[in-house]
Amino acid sequence: MASDIEIARAAKLKPIQEIGERLDIPSDHLLPFGHDKAKISEEFIKSLAEKEDGKLILVTAISPTPAGEGKTTTTVGLGDALNAIGKNAAVCLREASLGPCFGMKGGAAGGGHAQVVPMESMNLHFTGDFHAITSAHNLLSAMIDNHIYWDNAQEIDSRRVTWRRVLDMNDRSLRTITTSLGGVVNGFPREAGFDITVASEVMAILCLADDLEDLQKRLGDIIIGYRRDRSPVYCRDIGADGAMTVLLQQAMQPNLVQTLENNPAFVHGGPFANIAHGCNSVVATKTALKLADYVVTEAGFGADLGAEKFFDIKCRKAGLKPDAAVIVATIRALKMNGGVAKGDLGIENVNAVEKGCSNLGRHIENVRQFGVPAVVAINHIIGDSDAEIQAIKDYVEEKGAQAIISKHWANGSAGATELAEKVVELAESGTSQFAPLYQDELPLMEKISTIAKRIYRAEEVLADKKVRNQLKQWEDQGFGKLPVCMAKTQYSFSTDPDLRGAPTGHSMPIREVRLSAGAGFIVVICGEIMTMPGLPRKPAAESIHLNAKGEIEGLF
Amino acid sequence: MASDIEIARAAKLKPIQEIGERLDIPSDHLLPFGHDKAKISEEFIKSLAEKEDGKLILVTAISPTPAGEGKTTTTVGLGDALNAIGKNAAVCLREASLGPCFGMKGGAAGGGHAQVVPMESMNLHFTGDFHAITSAHNLLSAMIDNHIYWDNAQEIDSRRVTWRRVLDMNDRSLRTITTSLGGVVNGFPREAGFDITVASEVMAILCLADDLEDLQKRLGDIIIGYRRDRSPVYCRDIGADGAMTVLLQQAMQPNLVQTLENNPAFVHGGPFANIAHGCNSVVATKTALKLADYVVTEAGFGADLGAEKFFDIKCRKAGLKPDAAVIVATIRALKMNGGVAKGDLGIENVNAVEKGCSNLGRHIENVRQFGVPAVVAINHIIGDSDAEIQAIKDYVEEKGAQAIISKHWANGSAGATELAEKVVELAESGTSQFAPLYQDELPLMEKISTIAKRIYRAEEVLADKKVRNQLKQWEDQGFGKLPVCMAKTQYSFSTDPDLRGAPTGHSMPIREVRLSAGAGFIVVICGEIMTMPGLPRKPAAESIHLNAKGEIEGLF
Repeated sequence: MASDIEIARAAKLKPIQEIGERLDIPSDHLLPFGHDKAKISEEFIKSLAEKEDGKLILVTAISPTPAGEGKTTTTVGLGDALNAIGKNAAVCLREASLGPCFGMKGGAAGGGHAQVVPMESMNLHFTGDFHAITSAHNLLSAMIDNHIYWDNAQEIDSRRVTWRRVLDMNDRSLRTITTSLGGVVNGFPREAGFDITVASEVMAILCLADDLEDLQKRLGDIIIGYRRDRSPVYCRDIGADGAMTVLLQQAMQPNLVQTLENNPAFVHGGPFANIAHGCNSVVATKTALKLADYVVTEAGFGADLGAEKFFDIKCRKAGLKPDAAVIVATIRALKMNGGVAKGDLGIENVNAVEKGCSNLGRHIENVRQFGVPAVVAINHIIGDSDAEIQAIKDYVEEKGAQAIISKHWANGSAGATELAEKVVELAESGTSQFAPLYQDELPLMEKISTIAKRIYRAEEVLADKKVRNQLKQWEDQGFGKLPVCMAKTQYSFSTDPDLRGAPTGHSMPIREVRLSAGAGFIVVICGEIMTMPGLPRKPAAESIHLNAKGEIEGLF
Repeated sequence: MASDIEIARAAKLKPIQEIGERLDIPSDHLLPFGHDKAKISEEFIKSLAEKEDGKLILVTAISPTPAGEGKTTTTVGLGDALNAIGKNAAVCLREASLGPCFGMKGGAAGGGHAQVVPMESMNLHFTGDFHAITSAHNLLSAMIDNHIYWDNAQEIDSRRVTWRRVLDMNDRSLRTITTSLGGVVNGFPREAGFDITVASEVMAILCLADDLEDLQKRLGDIIIGYRRDRSPVYCRDIGADGAMTVLLQQAMQPNLVQTLENNPAFVHGGPFANIAHGCNSVVATKTALKLADYVVTEAGFGADLGAEKFFDIKCRKAGLKPDAAVIVATIRALKMNGGVAKGDLGIENVNAVEKGCSNLGRHIENVRQFGVPAVVAINHIIGDSDAEIQAIKDYVEEKGAQAIISKHWANGSAGATELAEKVVELAESGTSQFAPLYQDELPLMEKISTIAKRIYRAEEVLADKKVRNQLKQWEDQGFGKLPVCMAKTQYSFSTDPDLRGAPTGHSMPIREVRLSAGAGFIVVICGEIMTMPGLPRKPAAESIHLNAKGEIEGLF
């Protein structure tokens, strides 16, 4: 079998205008970036308002393991298969972050015969959206220190500036720094730091905003820090929201690319799945729903984190109603959930598969709690044994659902038609009764506790007085109706990353809560959250280079 | 008269493919960025090798004053006028830096009826080149600290890391910082800092590299710091040059846009004119020379700094032979050189013009030293009096040259045909005998002294033992053949910015020398050089916003 990059390079890409034509986008409303990428004009998007929406399918997964589940690959394969069985389908994915590409190997555009292309560009600068976000974020940072430097009319307490800086780079040295050293002309020294761009609240805002007007309003709502009296200072108080919107104007337009099978793919936005909600942009999803009969999208991490946020944050805020969900698993990942070490995954082990199924079962139950019908897709890997496959099928059937083997990685759309047909059956059955897990009006602490008990099956939530007081204060200030955005390890339902399977009875301690007033959620941090990764001992960057043909090597 | 932005918005832009067609660039060799910008493919550029070069015209200026000279406006006006009189002409300009746009008002795409469009995009993200440079630069920074973090196999002395970080932002707080605070996992604390992206050596390298291969070689040659034994550590020693080249692959392709009169404009690269050479890229200039009969380009600051570096660094390195030079002046700027305060520029003052002409005369003499025939363009401003104009004309005629009134700002090409005809006459006369000011073999200290005495008319160069030893050491290490890149105030021939006109007899103290081994020059610093600007008390960003029509306001 050829490698991902060999398959991607061999793909015959169509001019992006032809892909747009499939969706009835006139070519003058496509802003081209090269011959194979384009942004869709705001004017065209606005013209779609009265059109009916297509069906929305969420692809989610079991708790992630080092074995890999293939959520993006399955999203792409399912999209292609829906097209193959005669549906007009599009996929919606997140953009890749530049930083990690130079750290660990691995692109973010699917794999095998289920990929989105152009792969190199998508893993590098793409259409510049992340650079625009970096610029907008850091303009605000510069304006904050500049405001303090000149006369600090807003009386910002420089010890209480919460707005950091960002770079789309893995650079641990910038996590904690002191700035403005070197004398009077460089400002007032203070402690500061950088996060990676995907962790920026600007990223979350861009992904949740309806349009440019909403974008500017949300940017203005960002809390940049506090005064001595603890009152918040907003981005609009120092007049940065207008210029930030200008920097983001083009980045707000969704990007259109294509799959290996020349089907439309919207790739737009990429917020962290821990301190943010981890889905592609609302604008892209809504635009796709107007243009396609089926829209397949994915959410970050496993269903406990990713699907929950997709439902409770993105769908709630954007008024989206998903029609079906696909829960992706691999035999190897289930084995790991069943206690098998990575080195032993090649050995048939039906017992371990059965044991690991508890994790899958929990995710099936959870998705159902949102009223969305689900199917399990077993992303087939060469070496999966018939007995192992049967074990999963039996388990899922007992749970009242169906598990389907899908071979899109090896065969593209032809390998995923059964899955596509099942998805169509579920979506057209009209059985989806989507509702978020909790109401806006529920107190913040109860929202947290609802998710912890019903999704993570924790026995109790531990929060000290400081956390409870903070939540109470935000409720008093009018932020009580916001949803909560849980930040915890993605590897377990508990806060212990090593506790695989389907643990119960655990406690969930809250370390810290943060208000993302612009994005519109309260971040609840239960464990270490890394917002600026580091590079490994031997970074991928050392191997990345152009070959003699000018092709990129080592990026994937 | 309409404002610059009103004129730019009223322009009827042609599809960029049509502009490419004018230069015989097939549309599949144009990588579009929107409908009005494109990058030219490397393959197409390589196919031009055997073609003859057009004529190269340098636009330079008198010493800059707050009154403004209009070098870019004149470059664009002359390009349009050359096309208007039947020549196939293109202009070559630098890209604008994002940072300053949010500080002081003012775009970088010409003015009046002599502009390059699309103006908004050119002053924002454009085709992402500067973002790519920022990424490549900061990848190297992250890899340096990561190298030290893991095992420091190269034994980099963390106190002697000279490679900083960059952002395309005016942010004084980042000039001097301490990094890697916060504990073991964040690395070894050290003093560090950020420059603005245009000050990056990567920017200078991109602008001087012949092609991707040369780019990677030069990136590898960057000195990132020193070991305890003072031996240099190169970028290639930590394996960053390959990945940096990948990040810059697309940025190396020159950008094609158009003037208001739909003539081709190459806008590519934008290194600082103090710590770097201040000209657009060699690749863009060389490509334009293959495709047009006349290529008009500009250099930063006045002729003492900008033209000298254009000739001694860019032309020397790239083997370019300029055919003529245009020295731009305005009556108002000459009055300021003659001692008039900014508030009094509206009052006719022939005496002051005559006095200020000494500055112009010195630049005319200097350009002649390079063997290039020159004409003076008086960039006409409403209110210039006939007597003042006549005074300049007489002065320039005495100097054996000609001064031409040019009204491109008000009238576009129609206002600059006399200038265009004179430029054609000079260029086709074959009188240009271009040669750099000094030979590669001259010792570094003598190179500095040659420029100081022949161009700045300094009496002496003051350099302490430390500087002289450093230059000697670089000569011993094989860097003696590099040209020198002078970094001094642009406002005076001397190192005192208030000393206008044509001072003589001054001393020129050297504060510091730096080696840009990748770019290939020695930077000689004579005075304060700001490599990270700050924002003003009321930054332009506070007024920048989208209007109700979605148009950008306040950026210009």
